[in-house]
Amino acid sequence: MTLTLERPTESVAIPTAEPLAEDDGAVKTRELVIVNWSGDLDRVWPVMILSSAAAASGVRCKVFVTFWGLLPFVKDHKRILGDNWMQKMLTLMQRPGIDHLKLSKMNFMGMGSWMMGSLRKKYNVASPRELLEAATALGVEFIPCQMTMDMFGLRREDLIDEMGEPAGAATAIALMTEADASLFI
Amino acid sequence: MTLTLERPTESVAIPTAEPLAEDDGAVKTRELVIVNWSGDLDRVWPVMILSSAAAASGVRCKVFVTFWGLLPFVKDHKRILGDNWMQKMLTLMQRPGIDHLKLSKMNFMGMGSWMMGSLRKKYNVASPRELLEAATALGVEFIPCQMTMDMFGLRREDLIDEMGEPAGAATAIALMTEADASLFI
Amino acid sequence: MTLTLERPTESVAIPTAEPLAEDDGAVKTRELVIVNWSGDLDRVWPVMILSSAAAASGVRCKVFVTFWGLLPFVKDHKRILGDNWMQKMLTLMQRPGIDHLKLSKMNFMGMGSWMMGSLRKKYNVASPRELLEAATALGVEFIPCQMTMDMFGLRREDLIDEMGEPAGAATAIALMTEADASLFI
Repeated sequence: MTLTLERPTESVAIPTAEPLAEDDGAVKTRELVIVNWSGDLDRVWPVMILSSAAAASGVRCKVFVTFWGLLPFVKDHKRILGDNWMQKMLTLMQRPGIDHLKLSKMNFMGMGSWMMGSLRKKYNVASPRELLEAATALGVEFIPCQMTMDMFGLRREDLIDEMGEPAGAATAIALMTEADASLFI
Repeated sequence: MTLTLERPTESVAIPTAEPLAEDDGAVKTRELVIVNWSGDLDRVWPVMILSSAAAASGVRCKVFVTFWGLLPFVKDHKRILGDNWMQKMLTLMQRPGIDHLKLSKMNFMGMGSWMMGSLRKKYNVASPRELLEAATALGVEFIPCQMTMDMFGLRREDLIDEMGEPAGAATAIALMTEADASLFI
Repeated sequence: MTLTLERPTESVAIPTAEPLAEDDGAVKTRELVIVNWSGDLDRVWPVMILSSAAAASGVRCKVFVTFWGLLPFVKDHKRILGDNWMQKMLTLMQRPGIDHLKLSKMNFMGMGSWMMGSLRKKYNVASPRELLEAATALGVEFIPCQMTMDMFGLRREDLIDEMGEPAGAATAIALMTEADASLFI
């Protein structure tokens, strides 16, 4: 089973799954919680692959978005954000938005990230943006961390509309201890 | 609900939580296990936030402290540790203690870490030290990895008194497979 | 209980565990799933320690091997792999094989990694290769990520024989939500 997203310029396959076996015969929806802590291409990518694949295979997925990981969820046209020079400098150095991710290693001034993008297209792997769109369409809930928003000077309207309401660590813990699996990526 | 730690120079809020819903009506304490692998500010911080928030909301939390992650748990006044030049060099290059954490990226010779500290104070977010004190006061158990202690030349008396007894990988696995959620941070 | 691997030049101890307590009296095998995402020495090492220790203590362990984490599982004599110059460059820059891991930090042109190797031998800690051999002998299942193989130009025969069949994200999610604990390392 393959879900295909139609995009103006290309068509990519989103990984999907056979339905999960149930332990007890009853219909119970499995749950996956991911903490998206990083803003690096090579970590945001697996978050998007796992969350969209989970939703596509009937696993309820919630993603708690915190620290560096919040910057990719800033709206695309936003550039420099925050109230003071430190916050402005952060978004200046670490360009926000899902299309501006860089590899955590072997970036080589952007060449490594560009190469990953080329390989991705060549082998029909969906981009982080495409996977994010698929994930939200499939019902994955992305929850921004309130404390990170405060520290980085990000307002709710700076973030993409598809995100849920901001929450704190206690909510993240409640979600994780109730889920069938939790990952810190 | 907010727990406030009194410190000589400032007062900060520790995130706390509404009590967790129980699945089965019975009173069952939920458990969270965290592997604290990193010694970087931006990873130790979420470990401290999650563990203290867990304890404050009635979730039993155990933190297995290993590899780079053990250095922040060295006593504050200790500087260069170990029996041989390699171990001494490790603690020389990577200054131990909870007050000497650096960002894993955008550190810029300490300026990034200093900026994070400034933003933290401005927005009333607790420091790693304050969160560590809250976590131990609230009953979070920090367990040092015996193998790391051996390799890095750290003795029990080099580590903060609040830590539990050293343990190995098998203990960590037993804790994780018994807990409701496990995170490798 | 200690499992000792005989190697030509040295003998090292593999960490093992007391059997796990059962919740319900019945004999139920616990399960641990690890996502091995990184190719760095300091992350592959805990994956190998945890997976071999799990298997040695009767916990069924499956490791989903993805992204940078796939390179250490390339056969030892393989050097430059892939179909196009980008893939060849990747394996040129990031030398594959379990014996060529580097620290994610404090590598200092290889000196940090060499020091870790020296400390390891001095304190009788098993190397990643020895732990990998123990893990596969003890029944740990290493599952390569199909998407990573496609993007990096790696074929099944490039990878070590001990690996299982390639699989996708949906399989990883099914394994994780069925396991007692899951870690993203």
